[in-house]
Amino acid sequence: MNEVELKAVYDYFGSIEKETLFLTIEDVKRLLTPQLAFSCVEKAFYYAGSKKGVQMPQKIYFSYHDGDMRVMPTVVDLGGEVITGAKLVSIHFNNREIGLPVVVGFFVLVDSATGSLAFVCDATFLTAMRTGAASAVAFKYLFQDTRKKVKLGLIGCGAQARTQIIMMLYIADISDILIYDISDEAVKSLGDFLSKLRVKFSVAKDLRDFSICDVVITLTPSTSPFLKPEHVANAKLINAMGADAPGKQELYPEIIRESVVIVDDTEQAKHGGEINVPLSEGLIDDSIIFAELGEIVAGKKRVPSGGRIIFDSTGIAILDLFVGWGLYKKALEEKIGMKIKIH
Amino acid sequence: MNEVELKAVYDYFGSIEKETLFLTIEDVKRLLTPQLAFSCVEKAFYYAGSKKGVQMPQKIYFSYHDGDMRVMPTVVDLGGEVITGAKLVSIHFNNREIGLPVVVGFFVLVDSATGSLAFVCDATFLTAMRTGAASAVAFKYLFQDTRKKVKLGLIGCGAQARTQIIMMLYIADISDILIYDISDEAVKSLGDFLSKLRVKFSVAKDLRDFSICDVVITLTPSTSPFLKPEHVANAKLINAMGADAPGKQELYPEIIRESVVIVDDTEQAKHGGEINVPLSEGLIDDSIIFAELGEIVAGKKRVPSGGRIIFDSTGIAILDLFVGWGLYKKALEEKIGMKIKIH
Repeated sequence: MNEVELKAVYDYFGSIEKETLFLTIEDVKRLLTPQLAFSCVEKAFYYAGSKKGVQMPQKIYFSYHDGDMRVMPTVVDLGGEVITGAKLVSIHFNNREIGLPVVVGFFVLVDSATGSLAFVCDATFLTAMRTGAASAVAFKYLFQDTRKKVKLGLIGCGAQARTQIIMMLYIADISDILIYDISDEAVKSLGDFLSKLRVKFSVAKDLRDFSICDVVITLTPSTSPFLKPEHVANAKLINAMGADAPGKQELYPEIIRESVVIVDDTEQAKHGGEINVPLSEGLIDDSIIFAELGEIVAGKKRVPSGGRIIFDSTGIAILDLFVGWGLYKKALEEKIGMKIKIH
Repeated sequence: MNEVELKAVYDYFGSIEKETLFLTIEDVKRLLTPQLAFSCVEKAFYYAGSKKGVQMPQKIYFSYHDGDMRVMPTVVDLGGEVITGAKLVSIHFNNREIGLPVVVGFFVLVDSATGSLAFVCDATFLTAMRTGAASAVAFKYLFQDTRKKVKLGLIGCGAQARTQIIMMLYIADISDILIYDISDEAVKSLGDFLSKLRVKFSVAKDLRDFSICDVVITLTPSTSPFLKPEHVANAKLINAMGADAPGKQELYPEIIRESVVIVDDTEQAKHGGEINVPLSEGLIDDSIIFAELGEIVAGKKRVPSGGRIIFDSTGIAILDLFVGWGLYKKALEEKIGMKIKIH
């Protein structure tokens, strides 16, 4: 192969006049306010529920010796404008040993007209915020006792607890927060965080203390149930955020059977959500699922009044798509980020 | 939400000390020689054939009004080192109207240890080169008449014809090239390209002219068969590169029935390769597939001697992974590209 030959082929494959916008995690923090996270995630649930124009396959899982990676591509036709993106997010438990977060990822937005890479950003903070925002959207649409101040309980004091609190403070009128974790260190660290926030909080001695809470959010990687009916005696809403893979489980099946179950995605919830273990054991069946949260947000179904509601969250790709797209548009407006021509 | 609260959460989600390397299409052209493309694709087929440590799901398709997008993630454990990447490549027929290539895409390499984005590059030229390289690897392992100079026939004179020619010139001793396309303009343009290469070539008047060729490569988006047994009377190898989606077809089933069929991926070939239409019509059955090319490259199966061989190529994600990874390593060595910290 000589230079002349190579030049002929290189000349044929010209570059295209498309730029890619890059945001660092610091840029993402500046742009991704609780308000933006909430509005994007609410919109995402609306489109997920309306189903029109949404192409969202199940997450694709890859396994590593110390964790996994999930590839989450989605295309949504807004009617005219089409948005296309994917999040690639990994869980590496070994990250802890080198002082990195366990969940690290990035988001790419594709130019739906040409196929070029429109936008790339870190998705570590994005993932944490959109998951918190999913809880907040669930609260807005599923919690019915709107006049009182809310006693909020959080079980699990890891990274996700921070953004759950930020997003719940954004949407709800919270009187105090009760926290719990099997790790004293995790409890102390979240306590320090809450002190900085100047929010009234207390540490639960055991799970029975949660019986006074109006809303309980579970955030653990547990694979055996720990939350019993008496622990949630007064809870009108349980956001079960922890279980997102087969075998994971936080609630005793009795709680699920007594509640109205709202999922983020029916197939994913059956496969790896809070209901996956009792479903596979035949303790409940599919009919336990009352609706997807998107169907409630889109006004296609109404939550029955009075009972306790469980929001079974697995994390859906369309949430990342709308938050990523929202970040992209806001970054362009505010002229934040770096433009590079890779194509 | 006040500044104090936001700062507490932002401080918690610190950035990580990982950089991302970016290559432009011009960088990719400098680095991606025929030799690099060939060695990476050959290695990819070897791993695909050995199957060990390979996690490669089927491509995920998304549809647009003027084309589609394919998301192609793969993880390969080389035994110690794990490589993780994904190509997102789109086909937009409307790109032609604005002077852009129909196939545009990009490749991302994930740091398999932490989940961060290690590397991003344009994948338009990469896709064209790796597909050409797949043809060249097929030639090396499947074409048995090694002593003679090769008369090469190409049906379809689009972008892909260029990289097929470059890669076939790299691997084979070619005496002359015969080209054909239903578009006179496409033929003229490829003729100009071949003139620059100073390769002996001629333009076929009709498909009967191909009966003298030793190797025939089909590169069309046809959905009805056009290549008849008499057109390939002397061909020992047919690289059927065109069909890569359900309904696509270039060869009459008679040719397939008389040949040894080697596929790049069994499931993808059955779903959308050259064999998909005759399979769905019951004109052939699964047993027509003798092997995957990777099995031949890995030495797990041997090609029967004497007969005509068809290489049914659909394009597999592991090829992009190895070429992308090869580019990344070469770029680091030669200090090409731009490093940016997004995480």
